Amino acid sequence: MRKNLTPALLREQIRSGNWTGPTSGAATGYIQGNLVMLPKEVAFEFLLFCVRNPKPCPILDVLEPGQVEPAIAPGADLRTDVPKYRIFRHGNLENEVTDITDLFDRDMVSFLLGCSFSFENALLAAGIPVRNIEEGKNVSMYITSRTCRSAGRFRSPLVVSMRPMTPEQAVRATQVTTRFYLTHGAPVHLGSSHEIGIKDLSQPDFGDPVEIRPKEIPVFWACGVTSTLAATSASLPLVITHSPGHMFVSDLKDENLTLL
Amino acid sequence: MRKNLTPALLREQIRSGNWTGPTSGAATGYIQGNLVMLPKEVAFEFLLFCVRNPKPCPILDVLEPGQVEPAIAPGADLRTDVPKYRIFRHGNLENEVTDITDLFDRDMVSFLLGCSFSFENALLAAGIPVRNIEEGKNVSMYITSRTCRSAGRFRSPLVVSMRPMTPEQAVRATQVTTRFYLTHGAPVHLGSSHEIGIKDLSQPDFGDPVEIRPKEIPVFWACGVTSTLAATSASLPLVITHSPGHMFVSDLKDENLTLL
Repeated sequence: MRKNLTPALLREQIRSGNWTGPTSGAATGYIQGNLVMLPKEVAFEFLLFCVRNPKPCPILDVLEPGQVEPAIAPGADLRTDVPKYRIFRHGNLENEVTDITDLFDRDMVSFLLGCSFSFENALLAAGIPVRNIEEGKNVSMYITSRTCRSAGRFRSPLVVSMRPMTPEQAVRATQVTTRFYLTHGAPVHLGSSHEIGIKDLSQPDFGDPVEIRPKEIPVFWACGVTSTLAATSASLPLVITHSPGHMFVSDLKDENLTLL
Repeated sequence: MRKNLTPALLREQIRSGNWTGPTSGAATGYIQGNLVMLPKEVAFEFLLFCVRNPKPCPILDVLEPGQVEPAIAPGADLRTDVPKYRIFRHGNLENEVTDITDLFDRDMVSFLLGCSFSFENALLAAGIPVRNIEEGKNVSMYITSRTCRSAGRFRSPLVVSMRPMTPEQAVRATQVTTRFYLTHGAPVHLGSSHEIGIKDLSQPDFGDPVEIRPKEIPVFWACGVTSTLAATSASLPLVITHSPGHMFVSDLKDENLTLL
């Protein structure tokens, strides 16, 4: 049922309060996005952060100050159409809500950034295992020792998601995800996790640990959580993001954003 | 001689006033960029214009307000290292100069955008004719009837460059230029020029006309001149750009910016 909902119908369910859960697996084949909202005074700096770090922060859409209807989802309203939002004040998580109509004003700018759900479908279609989906878990995410290029007051380490697979599958996964350059693209690293500052793969910083089988290596992709860390790094009075796994679902199909 | 200069040596020649001509064919294999400088008050809106129109305005580098040393060319100075600049006041071309040190201040933001010189080298390497190079002319450029997505006060029609070739060569040229997604990428149109609002191919809006031989069709790529039209569309007190053909030469190699 969930898979068959169109994006518009799914957003309607979310807006009316009938859907408050994660969006993984919902409206399969349509692009889902990370959401970041912040004051227009810092919008240039944050947009610059995204432009300078396209692998973790690939830009799907940026709205003008006060606007709530994305070009990639006509009729949608970003104040109500995300299942769960996080409210950060001065860099600290204050609470989670399902509607931000009271908080959003004409000085806020909204960013929609690509998410790895798009290429996970493509990996599955190519016969590559996606362990977190097999185990019914959230993907494992880690804060690395790599630093993003900063922009103005925004800075962040690179956050990566990890999927275990054989070396042969890693080659194929690199080919498959290269096409999805607006949803994180090719891996940023594979093999030794120590080299990018990850001490223990069984203890992810976000999400759940998954089994790594014999002969499998960890393969790492840039992760959209980087954008949340960057947005909250500036200790702004107000930043609004989606809650992890509770994404905005657009009308764009995964295949609309491939390069080849 | 020219082809063998490194980017750093070429910029030194330009800075010292020994090189004031076009940069076509200079430092072959290195990325050249269109330059746009404008006040920081409108930097978010202009960056948004570029993000929304990645084919005509692919972002190579954006500098923070007042900065003049691009990340893609350490040691360079954008106030002196372009052979010729255009000064626009309230949207009108005021004059051309070879140094803008007196005009640039800490409120100005610099944008470097991809240019088609990169993929022309790749076309030649693939055995595809580039007529404007064969004829020693500037490429033919046309203002089309297609409209870019606007952003804030910035708007522009899409400007295209045109290269004539056979249909078979057009297929190969599409494959070759697809790799160069940060320097305009694949063609935006081919065949009928009327369909994109071009009345007479022999009368380009910018650059020179070139011969179109029997069995050849015009192939159109998004063109960086679009960014100049957009930047000057807002009637700002001051906008600085490079002069046509007089580009900024970076330390990046063409191959650094290919996707595959």
